[in-house]
Amino acid sequence: MRISEQIFPRMVGLIVTLSKEGKANVMTASFLMPVSFEPKYIAFSVSPKRYTFKNLKERKELTLNLLGKEMKEEAIICGTYSGRELDKFKKANLITEKSKLVSPPVIKCPISFECKIAEIKEYGDHFLIVGKVLKEWIREEKFTPLLHLNGSVFMEPIKLGNKV
Amino acid sequence: MRISEQIFPRMVGLIVTLSKEGKANVMTASFLMPVSFEPKYIAFSVSPKRYTFKNLKERKELTLNLLGKEMKEEAIICGTYSGRELDKFKKANLITEKSKLVSPPVIKCPISFECKIAEIKEYGDHFLIVGKVLKEWIREEKFTPLLHLNGSVFMEPIKLGNKV
Repeated sequence: MRISEQIFPRMVGLIVTLSKEGKANVMTASFLMPVSFEPKYIAFSVSPKRYTFKNLKERKELTLNLLGKEMKEEAIICGTYSGRELDKFKKANLITEKSKLVSPPVIKCPISFECKIAEIKEYGDHFLIVGKVLKEWIREEKFTPLLHLNGSVFMEPIKLGNKV
Repeated sequence: MRISEQIFPRMVGLIVTLSKEGKANVMTASFLMPVSFEPKYIAFSVSPKRYTFKNLKERKELTLNLLGKEMKEEAIICGTYSGRELDKFKKANLITEKSKLVSPPVIKCPISFECKIAEIKEYGDHFLIVGKVLKEWIREEKFTPLLHLNGSVFMEPIKLGNKV
């Protein structure tokens, strides 16, 4: 069994980074969790094969954009293609806004975090990234999050016991 | 907004550790994620106030036990009380089995991982723990995971679009 089918489902975020030259890239991530309440820290895991990885190392900044269940298509596009070949922002019709404290933009979605990278460390086939949240954007306080199982299988949560 | 209400819901695990003297403790965790596929690594976050934290530092071993939605009461008990005051294994009627490669026992539930700790590092009000999975126990391949929002609010996932 793959670990993604054992620890599931996972909330879906879009990670936005900027290259040294200033080109933005966006990547879907679901190996993702909160770390600390105050100050807020988040962690996620990224393959070094991803185009995003180079940007993370170069700039040590990112935005984490947490998706509602309406944004499944955006998650699939940003998880399937590589920013090397394609402008995923355009393909997925993402609306961006200028961040206040970091260089990569935020994406219009329920919640965005502007983060400074506190740690990048290799474990197995992935690198663990820890980010300190410098600023948060709350566009929707109540939303149904988009959750990922694997491949193109996405889920949504319901209160326990509410299944019909 | 608390970060637990922003990155949600999260899969629930029971972390089992052993003190230097050999006493087992169990704690509920939901700041939890997969890190690497091969070899498997997991990460979770723990408050240094927790009794478990001392054990993690002393033995550098743990088991992570992933719960199905039937185990909500067990999650609440192991998340509410401290092992300093109470035998939570007894209170929650947990069934344990001897691990093969680490000293803390595993708990009967859909999936258990025996882990060696690769990293313990402080970020904000929590410590991030990274564990390398040495052995896995798969008791159920198909199960509905227990998910946590906050307090005693738990959730379960359904396939996207299946809500009635």
